[in-house]
Amino acid sequence: MDMREKKISGEVIFNGKVVKLEKDKVLCPNGNESIREIVRHPGGAAILAITDKEEVILERQFRYSYDEVIYEIPAGKLEKGEDPYYAALREFEEETGNKTEKLESLGVTYPTCGYSSEIIYLYLAKDFVKTATHFDDDEVIELEYISLDDVIKMIEDGRIKDAKTIVAIMRYLIKYKNI
Amino acid sequence: MDMREKKISGEVIFNGKVVKLEKDKVLCPNGNESIREIVRHPGGAAILAITDKEEVILERQFRYSYDEVIYEIPAGKLEKGEDPYYAALREFEEETGNKTEKLESLGVTYPTCGYSSEIIYLYLAKDFVKTATHFDDDEVIELEYISLDDVIKMIEDGRIKDAKTIVAIMRYLIKYKNI
Repeated sequence: MDMREKKISGEVIFNGKVVKLEKDKVLCPNGNESIREIVRHPGGAAILAITDKEEVILERQFRYSYDEVIYEIPAGKLEKGEDPYYAALREFEEETGNKTEKLESLGVTYPTCGYSSEIIYLYLAKDFVKTATHFDDDEVIELEYISLDDVIKMIEDGRIKDAKTIVAIMRYLIKYKNI
Repeated sequence: MDMREKKISGEVIFNGKVVKLEKDKVLCPNGNESIREIVRHPGGAAILAITDKEEVILERQFRYSYDEVIYEIPAGKLEKGEDPYYAALREFEEETGNKTEKLESLGVTYPTCGYSSEIIYLYLAKDFVKTATHFDDDEVIELEYISLDDVIKMIEDGRIKDAKTIVAIMRYLIKYKNI
């Protein structure tokens, strides 16, 4: 069965700095019509960095949308047309003050299938050397190095809620810890 | 250090069926001003259902925002003011045709900390009985029962990309499989 929805008409509601909002009328495969409100987002790159002592680099950052300081792995929005691999290299150095020559892919994740086109490209960094952080004007980030065992506890008890962070850890555990 | 960003002014750009878009000017803790484009979303409830044979109920659904049929656990948007627990009970029965008396919490996940307020409440269903599906007018969903081992393989090889699905599986594995 063709499950695809076909666009009948559409309008751009807003074209902002981060998100573009579109409202489309679609034809569903069951013959019904519906409205889809879609956030178009350039996508992001996120980096799970694990040290020689098996510590994970986590960021604490205030997130305005949740009105809360949350734990996340380093990540950044893609510039228009940017290769996510190079975005990940850049964000990793800017936000953690560590430089790596090589990242390993941990695949992609779709955070919000109901209403956004955002794709997050996940990477693993294992060998890196200290350089210096370089934050954007509106970024205030604190870094913590936390053991992988404690990170798993923090996922369990809910101190870590961020989806991309948990997906990256999960892919790492499947690949390297044989779960 | 107080990491909070303070709202200076704000406007509502769009108030739709699913998303509300706001654009706020904020004062960052480092003294800089910035613009935050925020999607206000009512939140969702998602259910990891595991059968006696340790199969996971997955849905295949076309997602317009990604232009792709993707695998997800059953989930739905909260109605205004709705308790996520009851939303989960309802969505589970409507979308999978199974009824349960009791759900166990698997915590919450934040899918999109950069630009959305959406919180997804995760639940585990283990005992359920067959009833009948009842889809919304614009929902076309195919159900598959897949062994937990295969689900883990599908997370590894990227056939499963949906973040809430992977977070729910991760919390289940930590709690019940002692990883």
